[in-house]
Amino acid sequence: MKARVTVTLKHGVLDPQGKAIQGALKSLGFAGVDDVRQGKLIELELATADRAEAQAQLTDMCEKLLANTVIENYRIELI
Amino acid sequence: MKARVTVTLKHGVLDPQGKAIQGALKSLGFAGVDDVRQGKLIELELATADRAEAQAQLTDMCEKLLANTVIENYRIELI
Repeated sequence: MKARVTVTLKHGVLDPQGKAIQGALKSLGFAGVDDVRQGKLIELELATADRAEAQAQLTDMCEKLLANTVIENYRIELI
Repeated sequence: MKARVTVTLKHGVLDPQGKAIQGALKSLGFAGVDDVRQGKLIELELATADRAEAQAQLTDMCEKLLANTVIENYRIELI
């Protein structure tokens, strides 16, 4: 089973990478970019075909490794 | 207007970050993780409200900065 996990910084947490991208876009002449936030997209291929098991495994993976839950949110999609 | 750009490595391109995550998951005891690929998720707030203009601007941003089109694919979503 394929799954997609998106990890994004929580609202209010400073995003230096986003700011760097925003600055670079501005220097390339792109006007009208009010804000940029960068996150992670992790695509996984799981052996299990059981959706409930996959959801539980992925939640556990996010809590333990894929996301720093102090400053990041995560979202799990089973594809 | 809010937009989301996902940048992922093209098929066949080695993903050392994905391999590192896969190894870490294995060492944490997660079995049944056949493959892991990591990409970027970039969320932008654009001043324009014109969808066609936003799409064109974002494509240009991807081609020039947000994606390395030699080894990466990008997908644009207007939210």
